[in-house]
Amino acid sequence: MSNEKTTPISELGEFGLIEHLTKNFSTKNSSTKKSIGDDAAVLDYGTKKTVITTDLLAEGIHFDLMYMPLKHLGYKSIVVNLSDVYAMNAKPKQVLVSLALSSRFTVEAVSEIYAGIEHACNVYGVDLIGGDTTSSQSGLVISVTAIGEADEENIVYRNGAKPGDLICVTGDLGAAFLGLQILEREKRIWLEHPGVQPELGNEYLIQRQLKPEARKDIIELFEELNLKPTAMLDVSDGIASDLKHLCKQSNVGCEINEATVPIAETTYNTALELNFDPIVCALNGGEDYELLFTISPEDETKLTNETEISVIGIITQNANETILKTKSGNYHNITAQGWKHF
Amino acid sequence: MSNEKTTPISELGEFGLIEHLTKNFSTKNSSTKKSIGDDAAVLDYGTKKTVITTDLLAEGIHFDLMYMPLKHLGYKSIVVNLSDVYAMNAKPKQVLVSLALSSRFTVEAVSEIYAGIEHACNVYGVDLIGGDTTSSQSGLVISVTAIGEADEENIVYRNGAKPGDLICVTGDLGAAFLGLQILEREKRIWLEHPGVQPELGNEYLIQRQLKPEARKDIIELFEELNLKPTAMLDVSDGIASDLKHLCKQSNVGCEINEATVPIAETTYNTALELNFDPIVCALNGGEDYELLFTISPEDETKLTNETEISVIGIITQNANETILKTKSGNYHNITAQGWKHF
Repeated sequence: MSNEKTTPISELGEFGLIEHLTKNFSTKNSSTKKSIGDDAAVLDYGTKKTVITTDLLAEGIHFDLMYMPLKHLGYKSIVVNLSDVYAMNAKPKQVLVSLALSSRFTVEAVSEIYAGIEHACNVYGVDLIGGDTTSSQSGLVISVTAIGEADEENIVYRNGAKPGDLICVTGDLGAAFLGLQILEREKRIWLEHPGVQPELGNEYLIQRQLKPEARKDIIELFEELNLKPTAMLDVSDGIASDLKHLCKQSNVGCEINEATVPIAETTYNTALELNFDPIVCALNGGEDYELLFTISPEDETKLTNETEISVIGIITQNANETILKTKSGNYHNITAQGWKHF
Repeated sequence: MSNEKTTPISELGEFGLIEHLTKNFSTKNSSTKKSIGDDAAVLDYGTKKTVITTDLLAEGIHFDLMYMPLKHLGYKSIVVNLSDVYAMNAKPKQVLVSLALSSRFTVEAVSEIYAGIEHACNVYGVDLIGGDTTSSQSGLVISVTAIGEADEENIVYRNGAKPGDLICVTGDLGAAFLGLQILEREKRIWLEHPGVQPELGNEYLIQRQLKPEARKDIIELFEELNLKPTAMLDVSDGIASDLKHLCKQSNVGCEINEATVPIAETTYNTALELNFDPIVCALNGGEDYELLFTISPEDETKLTNETEISVIGIITQNANETILKTKSGNYHNITAQGWKHF
């Protein structure tokens, strides 16, 4: 970094900075009628329904700039919001991004964040249509709002699961959590011995933490398969916590079969190395941004060839009872650890 | 405050906190199909266009909790966003609110912020439909996204002003800036002499700073008068800066007549007392949240009886030239000081 040009943000000012950061963004969606540059953006959804969600990421709470590159941070801040739109079985079309920056950030640093935002906008085909950029007394805060569209009959809420429905999850679980543990370990070593080069290893786990992806492909697959889940949410807090939301809102219970919970081999092995129980990582880890959903039993055959989707359990009548059937055949209540920020 | 109950946020947790804060909010708009409680809210605008804007307020930058009551802060955070929606000649219908809170905030403190948010939602008839609540390492950050609707032909952008159009502004200017000066002065006195009770006086100026209102009434008036401005924005940075945006986007210039710039008597007198030039306060003060707009000359008669609207100048052909004609008949370039956060 030492040879790169650094420009204090004060040199450009707010409006100069926004122009500088957004000059390469072009609009991709016909629903984007007016983008950045007025008091508000203007959207046109004709007869589609509009889906909207927002997330706020704070330095030191959701990310640590010691190991999170700024470009990845910009990318991740968009992806986690798009994931919420996909979790409604909707397609994201626009984002708004607000940043609060402390004075230690230069124009080049903010440009890195925007490079990540731009990359995510391109990968997922969404338009950046507005935001706010301001200073903060300390730390970086990123607030993203994502807007999507869907036909009314396709929207999937959290409250539609029925007893007998099958519980499914995409991809694999627990990797992002273990990626974070590795990054935290290397940070501690580096703080104690600044000369030591990090031995990160295990790129898959680290990538799952630093550059997660939202499951656009699964929403497209649902369309192809003509499959509409009965309930769905994205895995942000860990499925233990996410299942409780789904069960509470649907007024049902669930039983998860440990043997069917998808855990990548490297996740499993690293968990044991680091003295974690792999199933606890998978259930409580969080930040996987996979989709957790329920389907009617008659739709199960549609998933026969889908290796990216695992059936991990069944919805029961016992409201709010979330049970894990272990590999040894025992039954445990699943305890959600969820959100530990406060 | 000392006798009031205080509850650490950790006692409720994120989901408990959100439930506690939002239990009294009910939906008011038929366009709100699904509110808080899923991955995203769902909106239905039929054939109307959707207008969307976002603002981020950071402690120590946009507000100082030494003199800004939390309830007012919640109220103001909503109002400044609604003001952007009105500035499009649209009607706000929904808001999303994200908060980053440091550990010094209790449940009661956050409830005060939400009491202000709720009051603003009731006054302006908007629905709170989502958000995110998280912790921060230091300081309070509030990010608000507001969504509104309008028929396409009624939306007013910043780029429609034509030479010969009249420049209008609502209400009066400079009061919010002076309110801030008074609050800052009393804060300094209090820090030096903690026993001294503040002599605030001048409630109008302080109210304009602590509890601004958005000009819902003016948008309704436009409808009654069948008047569509040619360009419009809200006065957030001060009209000197806001006029420059309007002229730049419309590729025109403007000439403002000092004698017609609306300044309340108390603003004028307090400015002189505090050694400020009243016209500088009015042009550069900011945070008035009035509407600055241009109209075709033939529409002027529609405004004859409207005491809340002042005609303060005219649009010229000289692109980007913003001129002030002083009371003494001299001509000056208007210099925008605008946004000083970085």
